[in-house]
Amino acid sequence: MGKRNLYLSTTPVEDALNIYMEAIKKVLNIRYERIQVVDALHRVTKEAVYAKYCSPLFNASAMDGIAVIAERTYGATEVNPVELTEGEDYVVVDTGDPIRHPFNAVIMAEDLMETENKKVRILSSVNPWQDIRPIGEDIVAGEMILPSAHKIRPIDIAVLLSAGIQELEVVKRAEVAIFPTGTEIIEPTAIPEEGDIIESNSRMFENMVTVEGGVAHRFNTIEDDYEKIKGKIMEAVNLYDMVIVNAGSSAGRDDYTVEILREVGQVLVHGVAIKPGKPVILAIVEGKPVIGLPGYPVSAYIGFENFVKPVLALLNETAGASRSTIDAVISKRMVSSLKHKEYIRVKVGRVEGKVVAAPLARGAGAAMSLVRADGFCVIEQNSEGVEAGDTVQVELYKDKEEIDNTLVLIGSHDLILDVMADMMPNHYRHMFVSSTHVGSMGGLMALKRKEAHMAPIHLLDEATGEYNASYVRKLFKEPMAIIKGVNRVQGLMVKKGNPLGIHSIMDLKGHRYVNRQRGAGTRILFDYKLKTLGMSPEDINGYDREATTHMALAALVKSDSADAGLGILSAARAMGLDFVEIGVEEYDFAIPAKYLELPHVQAFISILKSDEWKRRLEDLGGYTCEQCGTYSLL
Amino acid sequence: MGKRNLYLSTTPVEDALNIYMEAIKKVLNIRYERIQVVDALHRVTKEAVYAKYCSPLFNASAMDGIAVIAERTYGATEVNPVELTEGEDYVVVDTGDPIRHPFNAVIMAEDLMETENKKVRILSSVNPWQDIRPIGEDIVAGEMILPSAHKIRPIDIAVLLSAGIQELEVVKRAEVAIFPTGTEIIEPTAIPEEGDIIESNSRMFENMVTVEGGVAHRFNTIEDDYEKIKGKIMEAVNLYDMVIVNAGSSAGRDDYTVEILREVGQVLVHGVAIKPGKPVILAIVEGKPVIGLPGYPVSAYIGFENFVKPVLALLNETAGASRSTIDAVISKRMVSSLKHKEYIRVKVGRVEGKVVAAPLARGAGAAMSLVRADGFCVIEQNSEGVEAGDTVQVELYKDKEEIDNTLVLIGSHDLILDVMADMMPNHYRHMFVSSTHVGSMGGLMALKRKEAHMAPIHLLDEATGEYNASYVRKLFKEPMAIIKGVNRVQGLMVKKGNPLGIHSIMDLKGHRYVNRQRGAGTRILFDYKLKTLGMSPEDINGYDREATTHMALAALVKSDSADAGLGILSAARAMGLDFVEIGVEEYDFAIPAKYLELPHVQAFISILKSDEWKRRLEDLGGYTCEQCGTYSLL
Repeated sequence: MGKRNLYLSTTPVEDALNIYMEAIKKVLNIRYERIQVVDALHRVTKEAVYAKYCSPLFNASAMDGIAVIAERTYGATEVNPVELTEGEDYVVVDTGDPIRHPFNAVIMAEDLMETENKKVRILSSVNPWQDIRPIGEDIVAGEMILPSAHKIRPIDIAVLLSAGIQELEVVKRAEVAIFPTGTEIIEPTAIPEEGDIIESNSRMFENMVTVEGGVAHRFNTIEDDYEKIKGKIMEAVNLYDMVIVNAGSSAGRDDYTVEILREVGQVLVHGVAIKPGKPVILAIVEGKPVIGLPGYPVSAYIGFENFVKPVLALLNETAGASRSTIDAVISKRMVSSLKHKEYIRVKVGRVEGKVVAAPLARGAGAAMSLVRADGFCVIEQNSEGVEAGDTVQVELYKDKEEIDNTLVLIGSHDLILDVMADMMPNHYRHMFVSSTHVGSMGGLMALKRKEAHMAPIHLLDEATGEYNASYVRKLFKEPMAIIKGVNRVQGLMVKKGNPLGIHSIMDLKGHRYVNRQRGAGTRILFDYKLKTLGMSPEDINGYDREATTHMALAALVKSDSADAGLGILSAARAMGLDFVEIGVEEYDFAIPAKYLELPHVQAFISILKSDEWKRRLEDLGGYTCEQCGTYSLL
Repeated sequence: MGKRNLYLSTTPVEDALNIYMEAIKKVLNIRYERIQVVDALHRVTKEAVYAKYCSPLFNASAMDGIAVIAERTYGATEVNPVELTEGEDYVVVDTGDPIRHPFNAVIMAEDLMETENKKVRILSSVNPWQDIRPIGEDIVAGEMILPSAHKIRPIDIAVLLSAGIQELEVVKRAEVAIFPTGTEIIEPTAIPEEGDIIESNSRMFENMVTVEGGVAHRFNTIEDDYEKIKGKIMEAVNLYDMVIVNAGSSAGRDDYTVEILREVGQVLVHGVAIKPGKPVILAIVEGKPVIGLPGYPVSAYIGFENFVKPVLALLNETAGASRSTIDAVISKRMVSSLKHKEYIRVKVGRVEGKVVAAPLARGAGAAMSLVRADGFCVIEQNSEGVEAGDTVQVELYKDKEEIDNTLVLIGSHDLILDVMADMMPNHYRHMFVSSTHVGSMGGLMALKRKEAHMAPIHLLDEATGEYNASYVRKLFKEPMAIIKGVNRVQGLMVKKGNPLGIHSIMDLKGHRYVNRQRGAGTRILFDYKLKTLGMSPEDINGYDREATTHMALAALVKSDSADAGLGILSAARAMGLDFVEIGVEEYDFAIPAKYLELPHVQAFISILKSDEWKRRLEDLGGYTCEQCGTYSLL
C-alpha cells in the first residue's frame, strides 16, 4: 500500500499560529523600497513622514471677496458705512489668493455693497486676520504627516503632495510563490478525463494574496515527484518571501511535502485542530515561511485564512483585513467535536429584524457552499456545538446592506429559483434572492421559525388532492398567503435512449434508484405513487440513497451511478437525460400575509408576472405558469 | 469686480442625489466585456453563470484508503473479520481518485488491518456509497454558480474554473476623466512660489476612483480659460464614462465650470446643503455624468463620497463600498445649522470599553484633519447638532481593531508625541498612539470624562513652583499617577537673526505677538511670566491671536505674519527660527493609576525608557530626559 503517514498530530489553531509566528519573527527580514507618492495607494510607510512645505504655503484668503487693512474698517456701521477704494484700501481676492502686507483681513463678497466703479461700502468693521487662512493652518513644515506602519489612503496621497513630499519609503510587498502539486491535477484549459482534477486552488490563492496586499507568483502544477517538488521549493525560497505548496500536505501515498520540508528545513506544525483544514504544514526553509495547504477547496481556503493571511500581514506590516461580524440566531443545532475548531458556512438573512444564520453543507469538498455562504460561524475547539436558536457571531463575506436587501427563500428546490436569483438584481438594483434547499416541509418549518420570508413548496394533500394550501393552513395560525408559482412536470429521469426500458415506477424493480431526501416534496410524491401502486420502499433498490437537488440526482443517473430517479423535466433536459412523465404538480410560494408588502416581495411578484420570466421558463422546459405571481390569502 | 455667481442654491443632499441619479438612469449605457476568469477578481457579472462540468467530475474517493464492493464486506465483525484481496476485492485509492464499477464504497486507511502482502482485514461492514463523493456533489453541470450583478471573489474564481468556465461577461469598469483646473495650480513636481497651490486633489480622486473599481484618467491642470475647459470636457464625454472637473465649481470670478456645463449640457444641481462641500455641480453632457467638485480638499473629498461614489457604483453595477460604523460618545457639543448636513471629522478611541469620538478641525481646508481622522460623525440637515455625551454613529476609516489597540492621548502639544506615534507601531506591532492637542487643562478634563488614557501636561503651580502633580491631585479623586516625560526649554521664537532685537518678554511691546489657545500650558506660562513682570495682556499686541500648536505658531513667525510667540526650542529649530530662552518646564503624562497595567501603556513606558527615544529627542533639541518613563503614584 506504500508509505502512509496515518496519524497527523493536531495542534490547536491558536497554538499552531503562535508557534509559527514566533519562529518566523526570529528570521524575519522585512524589505523596504522607495516609491513615488502618486503610486503609493495601500502601501505601508516604513517610517514617519514629515511635511516639507506648509499648507497653505502663504497667508491665503479663505473667501471670495476683498482683502482689506482691518484698521481702516473700524467704526463702520449700518448707519455710518465706510467706503473703501480699490487699490488703496482693498484688492479683490478669490479663495486661496495670497494676502500680502499691508492687507490683513478679508471681507466676503456677500457682505459688500458695490457703489460706483472701484469703490465698495461696508456696514461693519472686521478684525485683523478675519477670513485669512494663516500659513501652515493645515500643515506645518516639519510636522509629522504620517506615522510609521501606516497604510496609505487616497487622502494621504493628496496631503503628502501638498506638503511637498514626492517619494517615500514603504514596505516592499511580500512576494509569494504558489505551487500546485499532484499528478492527477490538470490545468483549467485542458479537457478533463475521468480521474483528472481541474486545478483551481492556486488561482484562489493567487487572488487571496492580491487582496491581502502581496504579490502572487503562481507556477504550473508539479507532478508528485519528491525531487521535483524539493527542487522547486528550494528555488522559490531563494527568490520569494513566502511559499505555498498546495496539496500533498496530508498522509496519502504521494504526499511528500512534509518529508521534503523536514529534509530541507524545519517543520513547526503538521496537522491543526481545525475543520475543515486539518492537514496544514507550517514550515521554515532557509529563513522563509513555507506553508503546505490541503487540497480540498474549503480546507485550502480555511488554511489560507488562518495561517497564510497572518504571515502575509506580518511580512507586509499590515494589520490584515478584518471581517465585519454580525450576531445571528443559528437555525439548526450544530454538534461539533471538542477535538477541533470548526468553520460552519452559513447563509444569513434578516427576517422581521432578526438575523438568522442557516448552516450549509459541512464537507471539505463543498466549494459551492463557500460561494453560496454569506459568512462563517466559528465553533471553538472547547465547545461541543450550538443549539438551534443560540445567538452566534458570524464573520461576514457580504455587506450587511446586501443581507438586509435579500429575500430569503427556504424550501423545495427548483431550477426556476436560479432564474429568479439571476433576474432579481438585474431588474431591481441591490435586491437579492437567497435560496436554501431543504425540501418543502423543511421550508415551512423555517417559515414558522421566522428564518425565511417565503417557502417554495409542492405538497400534495392525499386526502383532498389539493396542493400546498391545506398544509399551510394546518401548520400556521397567523394569516398566510400562497403566491402561485408554476405547474411543473415530475417524472423518472433515465439515461438517454432509456436502455433499461423504464416506463413507469413499476419498472424500477431490480434497477438502481436514487431517492430525494426526507421532507422533499418529490419524495412525498414518490411515496404517494408507491402507495397507490401497492408497492413498498423495500421494492425499490436505492430507496435510502439520497440526493438533495433535482440536478444532483440527474448527475448520478447521467454518470451511471444510478439507473433512475424522480425529478423535474427541466433538470433531465439540462443533463441530457430521457424523461418518463409521472404527473404534474403545483410548485408555489407560502408566505406570511404581512410580508406581502415588503419591497423585495413586491419585486419578486412583479418578476413572476413578467414576460421575460415566462420566456425563460419556456427555455427550461416542463413548466406552465398561467397564474404565476397571483396570490390568495388563506 | 468681475462677474460673480454669489448665491448658489442649496439642494438637500438626498434630493440632489435622487434628482441626479434619476436623470443618469435615463441616459445610462452600461457596457460589458468578455474576460478570462483568472483575471476576474472584483469584477461584476453581467448575467448568471452556469456550470459546464460537474464537480467532482466522477464518483471519487473521499478518503485515503481502499475502494471495495460493499456487498463483499457484509458480515464483517471484530470476531469475524473479513479478508479482502487486492485487485479482486479492493483497489488502493487516495482522496479524489475515481471509483469505478464494480467498486461502490471506500474504507479509510485507518480502519484497515494489513495482513500479508495484497491482503487486508476489515472488522466491520460498509454500506454502498460510503465515503464516496458522488459526481456533482459539489457542483452539478447546468447549475447556476453565480447570479448576475455579483462581485467576483477569489473563491468564485476557483469554483468557476472547477466548473469548466474560463471566460465570462462582466461589467466594463467605468472610465473616469479627471480635470484639475485653475491658473494658480501647479504640479507637485514644481517649486511653489507665493500664490501657487500644489495640485493634489486630482491624485486623491484618481485613487478614490481606483478603490471604487473604476479606471481613472487624470489630466494635467487646465488654466482658467472658458474655451479650453469647454474643449476638454467635450473631448472627454466622448471618450469616457464620466468626467470630474475640479474647482471652478463655486462662485469666484474665474469659476466658469457651471456656465460651460449649462452651455453644453444640462446642470441638474448647483450647490448642495452639505458642509463642507457646498459648491458641487451635478450635470449631464452628451449622456455622460459630469461632476464639478470644490477645490478645498475636505470639500472635494466629501463631494466625491456623496456624489461621485454612487454614480460610479451605478456605472459599475456594484453596491459601492460601505463603511463600517461604530457607536461612539461624542466628547464635545457640536452645533450645526439646519441649513446643511454636516460632516464632522472625529478621532475615535476606546477607553474603559467606551468608544469616544473627539471632533477635529471643521474647516474645509483642513486636509490634515482628514488624515488624522478615524472617521466621520454626520449631523443631518434637520438636526441642530449634538450635545457632549450624546451617542453618535461614526463612519469609520480605520479598522475597529486598530482603534482598540490605540493609546489615546489628549492634552498639550509637543513634537515628541510625533516621535512616539512613529516609534510605537515600529516597536510594538499593531499598537498605535493617537494624540489630540487641546492644551494641558483640556487634556485633564478629557481624562476626567474618560475620553483619553493619558494627558500630556505642563502645568506650573504658581504657589509651590511644582509642575503637574498638584493640578492632578486637585482635580481627581481616583488614584492617579504621573509618568515622567521630559524637561523642555520654552522661549520666544523670533525670526532668524532676531532683527527686532527681542531678548525678553518686555521687549515684545510694540511688536506683533501670537499667543497659544486658552488652556494651553504655554499660555499659562506666558500669563505667569507677564504677572511676575508686572505686565498685563493689554501690553501685548496680538495677545488674542491664537495658534493651537508650537509648529503652527512657529510658521506664523517664519512667514512674517507675526514677530514673536512663546514655544519650544524644537519647533523653533524645525522652522529655522531664533530662540530666546525663557525657562525650563516639566512636560509629563497624567494617567489614572489603573491604566498603568494596560499593554499599550506598558509599551509607551518602555519606549520612553529606550535609548532610541533619548537619541531622537537629542536630534530634536531642547529636551532633557533623565527620569523619562519612571512614574509615581499620587
